[in-house]
Amino acid sequence: ENDASGFNNVLEIDLGNKKKLAVREFKGNTLIDIREYYTKSEAPDKLLPGRKGISLTPEVWKEVVKNVGKIDEAIKKL
Amino acid sequence: ENDASGFNNVLEIDLGNKKKLAVREFKGNTLIDIREYYTKSEAPDKLLPGRKGISLTPEVWKEVVKNVGKIDEAIKKL
Repeated sequence: ENDASGFNNVLEIDLGNKKKLAVREFKGNTLIDIREYYTKSEAPDKLLPGRKGISLTPEVWKEVVKNVGKIDEAIKKL
Repeated sequence: ENDASGFNNVLEIDLGNKKKLAVREFKGNTLIDIREYYTKSEAPDKLLPGRKGISLTPEVWKEVVKNVGKIDEAIKKL
């Protein structure tokens, strides 16, 4: 769906802990957005995108995926 | 190494596009931080962490990894 901002979300994954990953299209560019959401007390069901987050290009995302093994290994060591 | 802030980076990956992924330990908690960096003109070699970024717990990171196939599929469709 296209919202007023021109973003077209093609995938949205609830990561838990009030965080979501979205794959979206914006003006012909693909973005992978990982972000924290929040709610206002007057609309507790409406999740709003927060300040904490980052949008990655597919190239940068590919670098993340390429390093998953190394990252998981580092986490396990801690 | 431990820096003045108490963060202990155990892994740092250059993702390109001025972005890095770091696995770090802070007060006994493991964090996976994906962040944009910037430089100041007076110290062009010193990368400084920027505002755009997010720190994930290992549980949230696990959800990202679990969904890599689905995410890559969505990217390919765009």
